[in-house]
Amino acid sequence: MNSKYWEQEIETMPREQLRQLQLQRLKKTIAIAANSPFYKKVFQENNITADSINSLEDIRKIPFTTKADMRANYPFGLVAGNMREDGVRIHSSSGTTGTPTVIVHSQHDLDSWANLVARCLYMVGIRKTDVFQNSSGYGMFTGGLGFQYGAERLGALTVPAAAGNSKRQIKFITDFKTTALHAIPSYAIRLAEVFQSEGIDPTNTSLKTLVIGAEPHTDEQRKKIERMLGVKAYNSFGMTEMNGPGVAFECTEQNGMHFWEDCYLVEIINPETGEPVPDGEIGELVLTTLDREMMPLIRYRTRDLTRILPGECPCGRTHLRIDRIKGRSDDMFIIKGVNIFPMQVEKVLVQFPQLGSNYLITLDTINNQDEMIVEVELSDLSTDSYIELEKVRKEITRQLKDEILVTPKVKLVKKGTLPQSEGKAVRVKDLRNNK
Amino acid sequence: MNSKYWEQEIETMPREQLRQLQLQRLKKTIAIAANSPFYKKVFQENNITADSINSLEDIRKIPFTTKADMRANYPFGLVAGNMREDGVRIHSSSGTTGTPTVIVHSQHDLDSWANLVARCLYMVGIRKTDVFQNSSGYGMFTGGLGFQYGAERLGALTVPAAAGNSKRQIKFITDFKTTALHAIPSYAIRLAEVFQSEGIDPTNTSLKTLVIGAEPHTDEQRKKIERMLGVKAYNSFGMTEMNGPGVAFECTEQNGMHFWEDCYLVEIINPETGEPVPDGEIGELVLTTLDREMMPLIRYRTRDLTRILPGECPCGRTHLRIDRIKGRSDDMFIIKGVNIFPMQVEKVLVQFPQLGSNYLITLDTINNQDEMIVEVELSDLSTDSYIELEKVRKEITRQLKDEILVTPKVKLVKKGTLPQSEGKAVRVKDLRNNK
Ligand SMILES: [Zn+2]
Ligand SMILES: [Zn+2]
Repeated sequence: MNSKYWEQEIETMPREQLRQLQLQRLKKTIAIAANSPFYKKVFQENNITADSINSLEDIRKIPFTTKADMRANYPFGLVAGNMREDGVRIHSSSGTTGTPTVIVHSQHDLDSWANLVARCLYMVGIRKTDVFQNSSGYGMFTGGLGFQYGAERLGALTVPAAAGNSKRQIKFITDFKTTALHAIPSYAIRLAEVFQSEGIDPTNTSLKTLVIGAEPHTDEQRKKIERMLGVKAYNSFGMTEMNGPGVAFECTEQNGMHFWEDCYLVEIINPETGEPVPDGEIGELVLTTLDREMMPLIRYRTRDLTRILPGECPCGRTHLRIDRIKGRSDDMFIIKGVNIFPMQVEKVLVQFPQLGSNYLITLDTINNQDEMIVEVELSDLSTDSYIELEKVRKEITRQLKDEILVTPKVKLVKKGTLPQSEGKAVRVKDLRNNK
Repeated sequence: MNSKYWEQEIETMPREQLRQLQLQRLKKTIAIAANSPFYKKVFQENNITADSINSLEDIRKIPFTTKADMRANYPFGLVAGNMREDGVRIHSSSGTTGTPTVIVHSQHDLDSWANLVARCLYMVGIRKTDVFQNSSGYGMFTGGLGFQYGAERLGALTVPAAAGNSKRQIKFITDFKTTALHAIPSYAIRLAEVFQSEGIDPTNTSLKTLVIGAEPHTDEQRKKIERMLGVKAYNSFGMTEMNGPGVAFECTEQNGMHFWEDCYLVEIINPETGEPVPDGEIGELVLTTLDREMMPLIRYRTRDLTRILPGECPCGRTHLRIDRIKGRSDDMFIIKGVNIFPMQVEKVLVQFPQLGSNYLITLDTINNQDEMIVEVELSDLSTDSYIELEKVRKEITRQLKDEILVTPKVKLVKKGTLPQSEGKAVRVKDLRNNK
């Protein structure tokens, strides 16, 4: 097997044919979902049957499914299959607060999932002769068993190291000659540091390939990981509701993640209106499973923000690519009738070496007018010249206006002036009278 | 499938036929093992080939394999298969100190292992309609993935809860209606306590079956777990070197663990001489894998002490049964030419309600004679009458002599007099001049 594809026919399927396959699977999925208490009611209320779906666009006749729906129907209200006879695994979201969300899989579902993960790993050059180490937590967290079954399906030699104990991870890498590692980005950086403190040059190990995901990160962080460990690092996208890993994954072009459209139907919507956004624009990812039998999800609002990348990928795969996740739709705000995501502001700011990484967007009502104020800390590379700073400030303002179509008030502040965040940074403060 | 057996033909195979199967698989195993650097050398030095093994007894021509051998050939010196092409998983013993021991599996090995675990679970009445929750740690620890793959093979609905977080375990049990749980004995007791503190009657849940193992425990503890949780609890025996769980398992008779002899060849030896002990006597368990391709182990000294239970099991399974593990062969001592295990002494002592659970065996040289002194604390149920105590002391001495064939000096001491152990109790103190 020297192909560059795990499943050439599916991966390179002409788009028209791929859409036919999606339609056929969508109709089947709707027929299955109708057996769950939740979708039975939804379909009845909206007069939906498999026969009422005659094009992929017809999916818009069906209401969205939200995390709140899943919680309201906890634990098994969305299960469509015969769970008692055919259910083989439950995964549950960590749910640090409130009711967890629960997904139930049949053997078919687990097989399909493992195959998708194998397809991802194969795509970035991992082969059965590779040694694949997984530093995910196992158990309910899908990054553990998800990659385990996928890498075994591929035939790689798996090292189920599980999370934690960096010295042991490093002992495994050096003793077992691990070539591919799955790690969250922050842990990959930590490992590079422990390698160094153990007196081992981290760029000089058997490691060639890193799979990074499950934690938002920038392309800068990816490049840092690649430099520190002397590897190629590939971005992985998944979530428990959609199985876990194996949903979308970068190819070796490292330019967007291919979404496996034979198994998922992708929509990008405006989170306010629910309407599709034009191709290439940022919106909320809405997903429908196309190959899940026990518990299909239809038009599931992921709350993740991204966009579809235009154009064909040189790798030859026809499945669409999405940009890295841009944030959560919950973070979106509206000012002067325009939807804005903090990520859009950040994208502009990071291009200025004179700026640090800490910023704050304040929305306020001033003289009965809504105003957007962007405060950003200066970096050590900044100048003291007021004239220079004013030039930078004007350039930032101009670029922000181009990006978000609103002119914000930009303030450059001294390093350390803005509140430091512990954990997830608070980027938006809304002080308006009528929010 | 309403059979009481997972694989009736194998499980009830007449012993003569089973021994034929073992011989055939043993020869195959030797042929495979000869491809590993370690066994190649061992076989050459001892003139062993598959052809030199013409009966199961011929296995005694082959030297034992020890943990020290595995460490000396770390990590892959015992791998016989083509690890690069066919290896799919590495498990490694925790190895709190020193070099860990490493086992490599092929897909065949993992399939065979999962089937054995499914056979165990089926034997105690767990079916595909059951909900099986696993509170083992996952990753390298074989209790996690071992039970996961086995329960999925059975078709049960698995809940990969993983270790820790008792409230979450209890939420899963109540919300998912878990019917079968794998837990180490001490954790099962802990769970019963947390149920109570959560205001839930632990005997009134959906739980029916507990699988307990991985930690030495007495039959008393088992009965306590059964009472506290209102379940039947079954003893599980396994170790990473022999895959993990699935090696031997109690049937519903709860009288010894059936050893799956189609996949393992069992020997019980005198740990001093290496010679087989008569059937029914306690000795060290020595195991040979009969269905492992990537890394067979031949005559592996487990250091676990047990004995083969005599007679046929009413359940109809013909595979031999072993008694619960009696301790470690490292704990054995020799006095007046007799091998003695602390477990044998303990077995006698626990039968006296006048005695507590703390005891100490001291070996000393007195007037050039080796002496064995057994000090044991009295319980609260004891009497103050010297005449009564002397009667008890004499009876203990008589029974110990019957059990160990040596007459010890027995001393009854006040409760709290003997040193308290933290962690593993020290049961033997050897003060002899020539040990
Ligand atoms: Zn591509
Ligand atoms: Zn039996």
